[in-house]
Amino acid sequence: MTGNSFGTLFRFTTWGESHGPAIGGVIDGVPPGLALNEADIQVWLDKRRPGSSRFTTQRREADQVKILSGVFEGKTTGAPISLLIENTDARSKDYDAIKDQFRPGHADYTYFKKYGIRDYRGGGRASARETAVRVAAGAIARKVLGAGIVIRGALVQIGPHKVAPDRWDWKAVGENPFFCPDAKMAKEWEIYLDEIRKAGNSVGAIIHLEATGVPVGLGAPAYDKLDADLAKAMMSINAVKGVEIGAGFAAASLLGDENADEMRMEKGEVTFLSNQAGGVLGGISSGQPVVVRFAVKPTSSISLAKRSVDRKGKNVDVATKGRHDPCVGIRAVPVGEAMLANVLADHLLRHKAQCG
Amino acid sequence: MTGNSFGTLFRFTTWGESHGPAIGGVIDGVPPGLALNEADIQVWLDKRRPGSSRFTTQRREADQVKILSGVFEGKTTGAPISLLIENTDARSKDYDAIKDQFRPGHADYTYFKKYGIRDYRGGGRASARETAVRVAAGAIARKVLGAGIVIRGALVQIGPHKVAPDRWDWKAVGENPFFCPDAKMAKEWEIYLDEIRKAGNSVGAIIHLEATGVPVGLGAPAYDKLDADLAKAMMSINAVKGVEIGAGFAAASLLGDENADEMRMEKGEVTFLSNQAGGVLGGISSGQPVVVRFAVKPTSSISLAKRSVDRKGKNVDVATKGRHDPCVGIRAVPVGEAMLANVLADHLLRHKAQCG
Amino acid sequence: MTGNSFGTLFRFTTWGESHGPAIGGVIDGVPPGLALNEADIQVWLDKRRPGSSRFTTQRREADQVKILSGVFEGKTTGAPISLLIENTDARSKDYDAIKDQFRPGHADYTYFKKYGIRDYRGGGRASARETAVRVAAGAIARKVLGAGIVIRGALVQIGPHKVAPDRWDWKAVGENPFFCPDAKMAKEWEIYLDEIRKAGNSVGAIIHLEATGVPVGLGAPAYDKLDADLAKAMMSINAVKGVEIGAGFAAASLLGDENADEMRMEKGEVTFLSNQAGGVLGGISSGQPVVVRFAVKPTSSISLAKRSVDRKGKNVDVATKGRHDPCVGIRAVPVGEAMLANVLADHLLRHKAQCG
Amino acid sequence: MTGNSFGTLFRFTTWGESHGPAIGGVIDGVPPGLALNEADIQVWLDKRRPGSSRFTTQRREADQVKILSGVFEGKTTGAPISLLIENTDARSKDYDAIKDQFRPGHADYTYFKKYGIRDYRGGGRASARETAVRVAAGAIARKVLGAGIVIRGALVQIGPHKVAPDRWDWKAVGENPFFCPDAKMAKEWEIYLDEIRKAGNSVGAIIHLEATGVPVGLGAPAYDKLDADLAKAMMSINAVKGVEIGAGFAAASLLGDENADEMRMEKGEVTFLSNQAGGVLGGISSGQPVVVRFAVKPTSSISLAKRSVDRKGKNVDVATKGRHDPCVGIRAVPVGEAMLANVLADHLLRHKAQCG
Repeated sequence: MTGNSFGTLFRFTTWGESHGPAIGGVIDGVPPGLALNEADIQVWLDKRRPGSSRFTTQRREADQVKILSGVFEGKTTGAPISLLIENTDARSKDYDAIKDQFRPGHADYTYFKKYGIRDYRGGGRASARETAVRVAAGAIARKVLGAGIVIRGALVQIGPHKVAPDRWDWKAVGENPFFCPDAKMAKEWEIYLDEIRKAGNSVGAIIHLEATGVPVGLGAPAYDKLDADLAKAMMSINAVKGVEIGAGFAAASLLGDENADEMRMEKGEVTFLSNQAGGVLGGISSGQPVVVRFAVKPTSSISLAKRSVDRKGKNVDVATKGRHDPCVGIRAVPVGEAMLANVLADHLLRHKAQCG
Repeated sequence: MTGNSFGTLFRFTTWGESHGPAIGGVIDGVPPGLALNEADIQVWLDKRRPGSSRFTTQRREADQVKILSGVFEGKTTGAPISLLIENTDARSKDYDAIKDQFRPGHADYTYFKKYGIRDYRGGGRASARETAVRVAAGAIARKVLGAGIVIRGALVQIGPHKVAPDRWDWKAVGENPFFCPDAKMAKEWEIYLDEIRKAGNSVGAIIHLEATGVPVGLGAPAYDKLDADLAKAMMSINAVKGVEIGAGFAAASLLGDENADEMRMEKGEVTFLSNQAGGVLGGISSGQPVVVRFAVKPTSSISLAKRSVDRKGKNVDVATKGRHDPCVGIRAVPVGEAMLANVLADHLLRHKAQCG
Repeated sequence: MTGNSFGTLFRFTTWGESHGPAIGGVIDGVPPGLALNEADIQVWLDKRRPGSSRFTTQRREADQVKILSGVFEGKTTGAPISLLIENTDARSKDYDAIKDQFRPGHADYTYFKKYGIRDYRGGGRASARETAVRVAAGAIARKVLGAGIVIRGALVQIGPHKVAPDRWDWKAVGENPFFCPDAKMAKEWEIYLDEIRKAGNSVGAIIHLEATGVPVGLGAPAYDKLDADLAKAMMSINAVKGVEIGAGFAAASLLGDENADEMRMEKGEVTFLSNQAGGVLGGISSGQPVVVRFAVKPTSSISLAKRSVDRKGKNVDVATKGRHDPCVGIRAVPVGEAMLANVLADHLLRHKAQCG
Repeated sequence: MTGNSFGTLFRFTTWGESHGPAIGGVIDGVPPGLALNEADIQVWLDKRRPGSSRFTTQRREADQVKILSGVFEGKTTGAPISLLIENTDARSKDYDAIKDQFRPGHADYTYFKKYGIRDYRGGGRASARETAVRVAAGAIARKVLGAGIVIRGALVQIGPHKVAPDRWDWKAVGENPFFCPDAKMAKEWEIYLDEIRKAGNSVGAIIHLEATGVPVGLGAPAYDKLDADLAKAMMSINAVKGVEIGAGFAAASLLGDENADEMRMEKGEVTFLSNQAGGVLGGISSGQPVVVRFAVKPTSSISLAKRSVDRKGKNVDVATKGRHDPCVGIRAVPVGEAMLANVLADHLLRHKAQCG
């Protein structure tokens, strides 16, 4: 109830601080009999892992996941699945300098005022390290969803530089360090981000996600609309400041006849002629691809000095040393994918319960 | 668990269909001893009420709220508060023509596929009529928050027409039928919306909300971040397609040193020098104004014919007669304000429980 | 979250005070397409209704239920079902005398200390009147369970007088005002209770419930064991002080080889040779009848004067006038049945979600 | 939502199987700033630890707890507390013989039918080993409650042998291997249990718990009554078949004037003259000691052969070898105490949220 759990039926609870001995989570509600081993989870963790290129933090974490329960002889048993990832490269010393200072843009100040405690080591619970467990849960969610539902994500904007829709190629996503679907833009980003990084600065980004093969009917009326839960899921990721479904903010500029996705029977199937809705109507999936976008602010940890205050109420200038992502939006791609999987798995089980 | 409840400690559960005998809700978790009567709620319902200008639906509902429990001798007792609003101007006949048709952009198709039932009368549970109860709950939430926390909202864009930041005047909001803070733009909207309405079309909009006086420390880590719950709250409102906190999507284009809100001591108080964060850092309120924006798509009910299908899988052209809002975004202003109040009240109680 | 909701997937939220305008509830999570009308619910309410014999309170409530939402053309739609029962025979005047006094055995004192409010009219929210809505929810739960699961209850002890196991006849239950399965004992109770009633006193009772046709596999591990949820369900009924499953407290005196229910294959089916377990093993239904018993304390409202204190901290003697049940355990039979149905319906949906 | 979490605000989620690598749990909602270290938890685990006398299972587990998160510099931070206890003496080989058999009285059959999976090693998730984490959570709950609330438990019956009320001495509880408050009876139990043990049999028991210093006002109306949550808490402990509050089942035989706890002002304080209610009125604590009793069935694992069936539907005779408690009720004492602490801590935070 203090917000370390996500989902109602496919539900996970996570724990751990950036510089504690480990992080982990408990995934509850997983149907029994699903094939699952550590490698199934590891592949997604590796995608999010820090230190994989010079454009992400240089902290080197193996992010090796261990399954401690809920799996027997290679299959889920229906019991809660406990996952553990040890922290191996935490350097708390890096944080001695800012022990009593509040880093601008970080949760330092708000956590201290809320809890009266300052866990200065790398952001403690507020660290983006927590997102590793979301990704691990997402790997299990994908098992729940089955092979028919395909989830993928891409980085579509860094700073002012956007990918070109006509150069979009999903294959390109795996071939550059940015999950960029536009090979040409990926090269430009490389140059741009190198500058940012050398300047000790950081930059924001936009992530695009989609899920295909989602059956019509997932979601719930009123408050747990599928898109409402997706909005919460994405906004709960560290540093996210905006979420859109389908046409998103652009829908504000549309007329009703432009926005309504028309339908026609094609080969005996109901077929939508457009997807402004992003695959969700009245909070319930329509069978079209579910399309979500979210915006990530620039990493708050920068080596440029910024004005701030300390615990004693003194003005200070803070420059964050440590090892940080020049664009934390990059690693948000697999995190966003995982959260999309988590929400869909939850609503799949909820749908089965009421209407299955 | 099927999504008709919102909040964890300040929690309401709503019910009712557009054309049933009544709509209502149960608000649970309200602290005892708060002064509350029906007029306290009615004032907000009146603000959202249909039929108040030619720019909102011509359905004439008194939206008269009755308190059925939880209040004794003018004070809340701590017991659940049951609210009831009768439907008095439901004209189900209007819907006979589309009884078996799926209106594009509506939840008709997805509800039918999910539940196997077609409540064709005005959208049934999916109707925006449900938002009246959100507004009623919000009135009680404001009582929980107390007079120190001030919540207000404004419509800032209709179609392509945006208010001018330098003409922003909160007082203007109450003086035009659009909740527009820019008197000049309100006049332009009037002309623009009349055209839209006469053409049988509709248009989207953007709403801006802010809460001042929110103490530092409200929110929770990880999944129930204050901004995550706000994103869910807003996206759960009918027709909403996007939500932003603070700088929102614009944060993607910012550099780290532009985005971080610097702090300084001023007169012994921690003072932020900007508010890109929108009053939330690490999911916890910072003491700055909480700033939320959301985008509403054009009303799906338009009298222009659109291609669709019917229950039997036949192609049809659908034009929605009925009485509808040319811009449903207008009435979303008081609904958004209410949801902001509801989320804050919930987190205020949650904060008291753990850290109070 | 303040305890006015019950269940996770089949979930109801209730409201209303003994002497307010009405009581009611919202039942959420009901599968769509179930045939349901008011008469389906009324039949169970009538069974619990006060004033049906001289052995229950003489308050005359029609307990007429209205369905306000969630049903369309005689079928559940999947939307929340709102039920309303008007209070028609509330005589608040009866309570003027005890306005400032705390009745011994009642919640008067604890509610006042918790909430700082005294709703003296008939117990307010703490009144057994609340149980009517449990019964109404139970009627819907039975629809969810289907005809294959049969739930029935009986009163098996009043004061020291127990029914004789060898005279047990389920048919007798409907033929006396006590839901007594032992026709001979029913006659004895009649004499005994008349004495109690005339003396202005009251007496306790024990209720026996069973559900047959429950499939193997309902329940959950650890904390939401089927029997744990049943224990909560029964103990949450006003005046209940003890709950047993199967052998119950008698199990304490048994040896392991006496207690273990042996199994054998019979006609190709797993068959248990006894049912000490009461149909639940490891928190999960075994396919045997689910057997629950609970004890109800004597009605606290008696006309014999008892020592107490008032709001001002003065010693007083309290005799409760009003109209009360000499044995509130009688009407607890249909309430217990309903709660058993509610728990089973919830776990049926939960089972479908994870293992269906 | 599949039942591996307990509590609403003080909420823990547990995981782990009897013969997996470890068991553990995540405790969420703990207020920040409480002094806490591993020794604070270990002392309670040691009390429950197997192998401490010949009257409990001979499995030798160190039950050494590790805190993996949520504590920094000796204080709780408000973040979730992850606890881990390694399994060091699991001998899965012991279970080879019964790999395909369903042990009577165990969850073997129901788990298999529910999940389609047979984790035969020591009961898997259904093992009483899970209760260690309840005890660990209870240690933290006691910190939340503070020193003013004292919780203690005693074993009051083994088989037909009950402690004598007039010999009750709380000090004796720590001086025998049974948590028995009657030194004389403890000696008799020793002889009795040795016989049971040598016969390869087992026996049931009754546990008495009480909490003193509980302030008036904890609890909630309707479904989350304090006693309803206690009933669930106790019934969720493995092998428990009955729960009583205060007079419990004996209340059925009482008259109203015997049962109502009278009140008088004494030295300016409201004072109850008896405690039939067990410290709970209308679901809310009265300030009197909270008194709970529960019955534990005999350990199902006995070395006497019993009739059963196997996975293939063949009749078999099952004798459980392994290492087991002749009276599992003994170790249920610290588990019951912990669950009492857990429920009270949860309701303390809930009360603060709404009425604090």
